[in-house]
Amino acid sequence: MLPFEIAEYLARIDKTKQRMAAQGLDLLVAADTSNMNYLTGYDGWSFYTPQAVVVGLELDEPLCIVRGIDRGGALVTTFLEEANVIGYPDDYVQSTERHPMDFMADELKRRGLDGGNIGVEMDAYYYTAACHEALVAGLPNARLTNANLLVNWVRIIKSEQEIAYMTDAARLVEKIMQAGIDAIEPDVRQCDAAAIIHHAHYTGTEEFGGEYTGLVAMLPTGVGTSTPHLTWNSEPFVSGEATILELAGCRNRYHCPMARTLHLGPPPQKLADTAEIVIEGVNAALNAIKPGMTSEEVVAIWNGVINKHGIIKESRTGYSTGLSYPPDWGEHTLSLRAGDTTVLEPNMTIHFMPGIWMDDWGIEISECFRVTETGAETFCDFPRQLFVKD
Amino acid sequence: MLPFEIAEYLARIDKTKQRMAAQGLDLLVAADTSNMNYLTGYDGWSFYTPQAVVVGLELDEPLCIVRGIDRGGALVTTFLEEANVIGYPDDYVQSTERHPMDFMADELKRRGLDGGNIGVEMDAYYYTAACHEALVAGLPNARLTNANLLVNWVRIIKSEQEIAYMTDAARLVEKIMQAGIDAIEPDVRQCDAAAIIHHAHYTGTEEFGGEYTGLVAMLPTGVGTSTPHLTWNSEPFVSGEATILELAGCRNRYHCPMARTLHLGPPPQKLADTAEIVIEGVNAALNAIKPGMTSEEVVAIWNGVINKHGIIKESRTGYSTGLSYPPDWGEHTLSLRAGDTTVLEPNMTIHFMPGIWMDDWGIEISECFRVTETGAETFCDFPRQLFVKD
Repeated sequence: MLPFEIAEYLARIDKTKQRMAAQGLDLLVAADTSNMNYLTGYDGWSFYTPQAVVVGLELDEPLCIVRGIDRGGALVTTFLEEANVIGYPDDYVQSTERHPMDFMADELKRRGLDGGNIGVEMDAYYYTAACHEALVAGLPNARLTNANLLVNWVRIIKSEQEIAYMTDAARLVEKIMQAGIDAIEPDVRQCDAAAIIHHAHYTGTEEFGGEYTGLVAMLPTGVGTSTPHLTWNSEPFVSGEATILELAGCRNRYHCPMARTLHLGPPPQKLADTAEIVIEGVNAALNAIKPGMTSEEVVAIWNGVINKHGIIKESRTGYSTGLSYPPDWGEHTLSLRAGDTTVLEPNMTIHFMPGIWMDDWGIEISECFRVTETGAETFCDFPRQLFVKD
Repeated sequence: MLPFEIAEYLARIDKTKQRMAAQGLDLLVAADTSNMNYLTGYDGWSFYTPQAVVVGLELDEPLCIVRGIDRGGALVTTFLEEANVIGYPDDYVQSTERHPMDFMADELKRRGLDGGNIGVEMDAYYYTAACHEALVAGLPNARLTNANLLVNWVRIIKSEQEIAYMTDAARLVEKIMQAGIDAIEPDVRQCDAAAIIHHAHYTGTEEFGGEYTGLVAMLPTGVGTSTPHLTWNSEPFVSGEATILELAGCRNRYHCPMARTLHLGPPPQKLADTAEIVIEGVNAALNAIKPGMTSEEVVAIWNGVINKHGIIKESRTGYSTGLSYPPDWGEHTLSLRAGDTTVLEPNMTIHFMPGIWMDDWGIEISECFRVTETGAETFCDFPRQLFVKD
């Protein structure tokens, strides 16, 4: 069932260990769902209870520690030996008396791994304040230090197989973007368009179907387009209003996101004009990208275009994307914004997402791309335009 | 757009303040997505960045503090005055230099709310270790104390309108359970069944469509039924194997979950026998429930039935459910298990979920119910049986 060769997982673990060694860590407790998957293959919707993959410099392979009833899922989805897949008893779940991280600490003690420098991902989803408190209390012989994003930075350069899965995901998002644009009409309910989009995604292609995405389909409409994260409700789309479709395909947990904007009826001039400016900015940035540039240099090109047209955008214009679980499809490493000096390298994969959100309207036209040896290559082949239905 | 009367939100806030006062809290920073919605109506898929609703004993209404680009969404979905909806600048997002909770602390200072006893939800999803660290550092004049689940315990008794939304959600889950059972056949791909289930959910009824659920559809199949949280992939269902469908309807963020098990072809005797035992146990428990009983007394009735048939179940058999956001549809208060002495009261809403997971097989037949003045009333009307397709 593994989507990658075991050798690829081992190479990831090796790179992780190198970073750990460089930071003086003996052990890493990776609670980030995506990092758990990246290092071991673990895949299940069990992240609503605390869990982690533990990488030790002295350990041959990682440990995977999950809720007891999910241990079977870990045995099915990881390459780990049985002895390294550990389930905690159910009375640790949502208890006021004991915490799953108490068990985690005890398990590390049982294995003699409770000393030295232990890295934890302080800002990983689901690594709550209570998780950390329990781990600190349970590991008095260790020094816990912040190793947030350590594995994420390993993830930023994609392998050929990872690129292949994102390419599959691109086929999915092209399909569902078209399905969404086709579905949205005046008097069609938002929920019915969402139904069509998700159906198109999960049925996918003859070779593979889509999986749940880090964010569900975003379909802000009307005044809702002034803000990016509204989802659908049971109200109809309205003639004379715009809808933003921010969607992603997902294949083996690898995402390819895309955003487009659709207007029902002749668009207001400001929307049509802004679309042209956004497209000019996206084109300029994508044409200019080369390995060796920094993130903020990319943004400067984008800003150069939009600022000359009088548009100022303060929020970031993109982020590293790929492997992810809810609630996000961003990888939390590179951000396209001023101050980010990350140097672009081949096989970094980035969602260029220059959303413009004004007082009561907005527009999104985005592209997911891969940095190549010589430039940037978009994953999708989909018209880069404002869509209008008369 | 508000799904409840403002008076209902105000009553929730009032109850929350009473609990705060009883615990000596001056202020509560509620970062739990469901609690934010419960107290203010806030609804958006923005929980991938830190955010919170702040309730103060001395504040007329709560503050809602979100990422700047989501402030518009907060204005659209809450009843709050503009001055109480605050967006933080985008350079706080996924930055290594500053944290959104730095802004949160500064905002509390600006408003003179940075002293006294401040409650935080230590184990709320998305209230990470880094969130807490930043808040502690930014609020040196306050004593931060753990107010985990304070609002969740207010939520445990549902209003008539909340019950009405869960009843709507029950219509949705009945529809999609039937759609799923109809769809699953030998050689049908899992992803195609997931597509049909989600399509049926979001199209919903003529009156309302379904929304994204706290967990996506769980469809473990074959050996995967031995573990509860596997989702679909692109492989086909296989004759001679079982599939567990764990689904929920969702209406205005209120869930009604249900699980059933389907076998393709004549089921193994142990599966058929266990189904009978599970159904007998569910029936016995549901028939016995009365207000005034404790959670563990309910479980004892269930255990009495299954133990006499030689089945031992160590994991919990249910939990409070209703309002929720990913990654869960449980409310983290009452659990049906030994040691939980919560006294049942009318309008508590519970998912009785007695999953049996064995070495290489499993079964789930569940019911979501409401405690009434005299007993228990299930939300769904759906055959309580093992489904078999010959």
